[in-house]
Amino acid sequence: MVNFKTTERKKYTLVEFELNQLISPADLENLQPPEVKGTKGVILSGKAPIWLYGMLIHHYHPTAFIGVYEPRIGGGVVVASHNPAYKIGDVIPMEVK
Amino acid sequence: MVNFKTTERKKYTLVEFELNQLISPADLENLQPPEVKGTKGVILSGKAPIWLYGMLIHHYHPTAFIGVYEPRIGGGVVVASHNPAYKIGDVIPMEVK
Repeated sequence: MVNFKTTERKKYTLVEFELNQLISPADLENLQPPEVKGTKGVILSGKAPIWLYGMLIHHYHPTAFIGVYEPRIGGGVVVASHNPAYKIGDVIPMEVK
Repeated sequence: MVNFKTTERKKYTLVEFELNQLISPADLENLQPPEVKGTKGVILSGKAPIWLYGMLIHHYHPTAFIGVYEPRIGGGVVVASHNPAYKIGDVIPMEVK
Protein backbone atom coordinates (compact mmCIF):
# COMPACT_ATOMS: atom_id res chain seq x y z
CA MET A 1 0.00 0.00 0.00
CA VAL A 2 2.74 2.40 1.01
CA ASN A 3 6.31 1.50 0.15
CA PHE A 4 8.86 3.11 2.39
CA LYS A 5 12.55 3.49 1.73
CA THR A 6 15.02 4.91 4.21
CA THR A 7 18.42 6.38 3.52
CA GLU A 8 20.79 7.32 6.31
CA ARG A 9 22.42 10.70 5.94
CA LYS A 10 24.65 12.39 8.44
CA LYS A 11 22.11 14.47 10.34
CA TYR A 12 18.86 12.80 9.39
CA THR A 13 17.17 9.76 7.94
CA LEU A 14 15.50 10.38 4.62
CA VAL A 15 12.18 8.56 4.64
CA GLU A 16 10.78 8.29 1.13
CA PHE A 17 7.41 6.80 0.38
CA GLU A 18 5.41 5.80 -2.63
CA LEU A 19 1.78 4.79 -2.87
CA ASN A 20 1.38 1.73 -5.05
CA GLN A 21 -2.39 1.98 -4.92
CA LEU A 22 -4.99 4.36 -3.62
CA ILE A 23 -4.78 4.79 0.09
CA SER A 24 -7.77 5.43 2.29
CA PRO A 25 -7.81 6.90 5.79
CA ALA A 26 -8.68 3.49 7.25
CA ASP A 27 -5.29 2.24 6.04
CA LEU A 28 -3.48 4.61 8.40
CA GLU A 29 -4.22 2.43 11.38
CA ASN A 30 -2.14 -0.49 10.10
CA LEU A 31 0.60 1.53 8.55
CA GLN A 32 4.04 0.71 9.88
CA PRO A 33 6.45 3.50 9.12
CA PRO A 34 10.09 2.44 9.22
CA GLU A 35 12.01 2.73 12.45
CA VAL A 36 14.60 5.47 12.63
CA LYS A 37 17.21 6.64 15.07
CA GLY A 38 15.53 9.26 17.24
CA THR A 39 18.79 11.06 17.87
CA LYS A 40 18.83 12.14 14.24
CA GLY A 41 16.17 14.02 12.35
CA VAL A 42 13.77 12.69 9.76
CA ILE A 43 13.03 14.19 6.39
CA LEU A 44 9.89 12.98 4.63
CA SER A 45 9.57 12.86 0.88
CA GLY A 46 6.80 11.54 -1.32
CA LYS A 47 3.61 12.31 -3.15
CA ALA A 48 0.80 11.57 -0.75
CA PRO A 49 -2.32 13.08 0.77
CA ILE A 50 -1.68 15.66 3.47
CA TRP A 51 -3.26 13.37 6.05
CA LEU A 52 -0.64 10.69 5.38
CA TYR A 53 2.02 13.31 5.98
CA GLY A 54 0.13 14.36 9.09
CA MET A 55 0.17 10.86 10.49
CA LEU A 56 3.89 10.49 9.73
CA ILE A 57 4.75 13.84 11.30
CA HIS A 58 2.92 12.78 14.43
CA HIS A 59 4.59 9.37 14.34
CA TYR A 60 8.09 10.82 14.13
CA HIS A 61 7.41 13.48 16.73
CA PRO A 62 9.99 12.05 19.19
CA THR A 63 12.92 12.42 16.77
CA ALA A 64 15.43 15.29 16.84
CA PHE A 65 13.62 17.17 14.09
CA ILE A 66 11.21 16.61 11.23
CA GLY A 67 11.45 18.10 7.79
CA VAL A 68 9.33 17.90 4.69
CA TYR A 69 11.15 17.77 1.37
CA GLU A 70 9.98 20.52 -0.97
CA PRO A 71 11.24 19.96 -4.51
CA ARG A 72 10.46 23.55 -5.55
CA ILE A 73 12.83 24.78 -2.87
CA GLY A 74 15.36 21.98 -3.19
CA GLY A 75 15.46 21.28 0.48
CA GLY A 76 13.80 19.87 3.53
CA VAL A 77 11.70 22.41 5.42
CA VAL A 78 11.90 21.91 9.19
CA VAL A 79 8.39 21.72 10.66
CA ALA A 80 9.18 20.46 14.16
CA SER A 81 12.35 20.32 16.20
CA HIS A 82 13.68 19.32 19.58
CA ASN A 83 17.19 20.31 18.58
CA PRO A 84 18.14 23.99 18.93
CA ALA A 85 20.40 23.70 15.88
CA TYR A 86 17.31 23.25 13.70
CA LYS A 87 14.57 25.84 13.88
CA ILE A 88 11.10 25.60 12.44
CA GLY A 89 11.26 27.12 8.97
CA ASP A 90 14.91 26.27 8.38
CA VAL A 91 15.66 24.75 5.01
CA ILE A 92 18.12 21.88 4.85
CA PRO A 93 19.49 21.90 1.32
CA MET A 94 19.33 18.42 -0.11
CA GLU A 95 18.61 16.38 -3.15
CA VAL A 96 16.24 13.51 -3.51
CA LYS A 97 16.92 11.46 -6.60
CA MET B 1 0.58 36.22 5.09
CA VAL B 2 -1.66 33.50 6.49
CA ASN B 3 -5.19 34.38 7.51
CA PHE B 4 -6.65 32.07 10.09
CA LYS B 5 -10.27 31.68 10.97
CA THR B 6 -11.54 29.48 13.78
CA THR B 7 -15.02 28.05 14.22
CA GLU B 8 -16.03 26.25 17.37
CA ARG B 9 -17.86 23.00 16.82
CA LYS B 10 -18.95 20.57 19.46
CA LYS B 11 -15.97 18.21 19.47
CA TYR B 12 -13.32 20.27 17.73
CA THR B 13 -12.21 23.68 16.60
CA LEU B 14 -12.15 24.09 12.85
CA VAL B 15 -9.01 26.03 11.95
CA GLU B 16 -9.22 27.32 8.40
CA PHE B 17 -6.40 29.16 6.73
CA GLU B 18 -5.79 31.05 3.56
CA LEU B 19 -2.56 32.31 2.08
CA ASN B 20 -2.93 35.85 0.84
CA GLN B 21 0.53 35.80 -0.69
CA LEU B 22 3.29 33.35 -1.30
CA ILE B 23 4.64 31.92 1.88
CA SER B 24 8.23 30.89 2.36
CA PRO B 25 9.66 28.55 4.98
CA ALA B 26 11.26 31.49 6.80
CA ASP B 27 7.75 32.81 7.52
CA LEU B 28 6.97 29.78 9.68
CA GLU B 29 9.03 31.12 12.54
CA ASN B 30 6.79 34.14 13.09
CA LEU B 31 3.52 32.44 12.36
CA GLN B 32 1.04 32.65 15.20
CA PRO B 33 -1.63 30.03 14.79
CA PRO B 34 -4.84 30.80 16.70
CA GLU B 35 -5.22 29.53 20.22
CA VAL B 36 -7.66 26.69 20.73
CA LYS B 37 -9.08 24.75 23.62
CA GLY B 38 -6.80 21.76 24.09
CA THR B 39 -9.61 19.66 25.53
CA LYS B 40 -11.23 19.58 22.10
CA GLY B 41 -9.72 18.46 18.84
CA VAL B 42 -8.54 20.59 15.94
CA ILE B 43 -9.39 20.09 12.30
CA LEU B 44 -7.22 21.92 9.79
CA SER B 45 -8.50 23.08 6.44
CA GLY B 46 -6.83 25.12 3.74
CA LYS B 47 -4.76 25.05 0.59
CA ALA B 48 -1.18 25.30 1.69
CA PRO B 49 2.19 23.62 1.28
CA ILE B 50 2.59 20.39 3.18
CA TRP B 51 5.24 21.99 5.38
CA LEU B 52 2.76 24.58 6.63
CA TYR B 53 0.45 21.73 7.56
CA GLY B 54 3.39 20.01 9.17
CA MET B 55 4.17 23.00 11.35
CA LEU B 56 0.50 23.32 12.37
CA ILE B 57 0.19 19.62 13.17
CA HIS B 58 3.22 19.90 15.40
CA HIS B 59 1.88 23.10 16.95
CA TYR B 60 -1.46 21.55 17.86
CA HIS B 61 0.09 18.33 19.08
CA PRO B 62 -1.13 18.88 22.69
CA THR B 63 -4.82 19.01 21.73
CA ALA B 64 -7.24 16.08 22.07
CA PHE B 65 -6.86 15.11 18.42
CA ILE B 66 -5.85 16.58 15.08
CA GLY B 67 -7.62 16.06 11.81
CA VAL B 68 -6.98 17.22 8.27
CA TYR B 69 -10.01 18.13 6.21
CA GLU B 70 -10.12 16.21 2.95
CA PRO B 71 -12.71 17.63 0.56
CA ARG B 72 -12.67 14.50 -1.64
CA ILE B 73 -13.77 12.45 1.34
CA GLY B 74 -15.99 15.07 2.89
CA GLY B 75 -14.52 14.74 6.31
CA GLY B 76 -11.63 15.36 8.62
CA VAL B 77 -9.08 12.53 8.69
CA VAL B 78 -7.65 11.99 12.17
CA VAL B 79 -3.85 11.99 12.02
CA ALA B 80 -3.01 12.22 15.73
CA SER B 81 -5.02 11.61 18.87
CA HIS B 82 -4.75 11.56 22.62
CA ASN B 83 -8.40 10.68 22.96
CA PRO B 84 -9.34 6.98 22.69
CA ALA B 85 -12.65 7.94 21.06
CA TYR B 86 -10.73 9.15 17.98
CA LYS B 87 -8.34 6.78 16.28
CA ILE B 88 -5.79 7.62 13.65
CA GLY B 89 -7.50 7.10 10.30
CA ASP B 90 -11.00 7.85 11.56
CA VAL B 91 -12.99 10.17 9.35
CA ILE B 92 -15.11 12.80 11.03
CA PRO B 93 -17.83 13.67 8.54
CA MET B 94 -18.08 17.41 8.18
CA GLU B 95 -18.59 20.22 5.79
CA VAL B 96 -16.43 23.23 5.27
CA LYS B 97 -18.25 26.01 3.44
